[in-house]
Amino acid sequence: MIGRLNHVAIVVPDLAAAAARYSGPLGATVSAPQALPDHGVRVVFVELPNTKIELMEPLDDGSPVAGFLAKSPSGGMHHVCYEVDDIAAARDRLVASGARVLGDGTPKTGAHGKPVLFLHPKDFDGCLIEIEQV
Amino acid sequence: MIGRLNHVAIVVPDLAAAAARYSGPLGATVSAPQALPDHGVRVVFVELPNTKIELMEPLDDGSPVAGFLAKSPSGGMHHVCYEVDDIAAARDRLVASGARVLGDGTPKTGAHGKPVLFLHPKDFDGCLIEIEQV
Repeated sequence: MIGRLNHVAIVVPDLAAAAARYSGPLGATVSAPQALPDHGVRVVFVELPNTKIELMEPLDDGSPVAGFLAKSPSGGMHHVCYEVDDIAAARDRLVASGARVLGDGTPKTGAHGKPVLFLHPKDFDGCLIEIEQV
Repeated sequence: MIGRLNHVAIVVPDLAAAAARYSGPLGATVSAPQALPDHGVRVVFVELPNTKIELMEPLDDGSPVAGFLAKSPSGGMHHVCYEVDDIAAARDRLVASGARVLGDGTPKTGAHGKPVLFLHPKDFDGCLIEIEQV
């Protein structure tokens, strides 16, 4: 069911400094920063030949990732995003298996303007999984 | 400098159960388990169209990932691995930038039989980065 790894998301305390590390010492191509107010984050994408790394910092104290940084001030890996063909079918299959979908189960619009859902990390070995319909 | 995302590694408390979640509800292709005694882990690879997810459990209490599970008993994301063409040149560039390489800076042999090094997570926003020469 899951297809490509769309991206890995990493929460960072200072987006400009993090972007400079990926474009400098790591020598990758990094996009311009963009605010995603619906998600409470500002992000850049590190463009790799086969996938992307999403670096994100909170837009404000109410950001969903502000709590993550409060626990892990240095930042850390936040989630992985897998592509699916049909997000409603994917959700139904996951829920039938006993996995929990965060929120009310209605897909939201993700960073790429596509429908997304998040799965409960407790059901996947502590890993927060986003699924995105492409 | 960094090329493809080779894999994302996730530490899991029960490899067979985790493999079943990825092959079942998530519907992915999962390799047979293999022990990597040099790394103190047993792993399976979730084969995605563009990259791999490495699920790993400790081989024994002395495993480098046993401490991770002691802190996070449910498991969690552990590291990301980027491909590089020349690991010695990559190491020298990173060290020159002030980044710390774990161990004595001599590449070890990774899960795929290739030279690998790990970078200090404090230098990369709390994210443990493996680089692998391909």
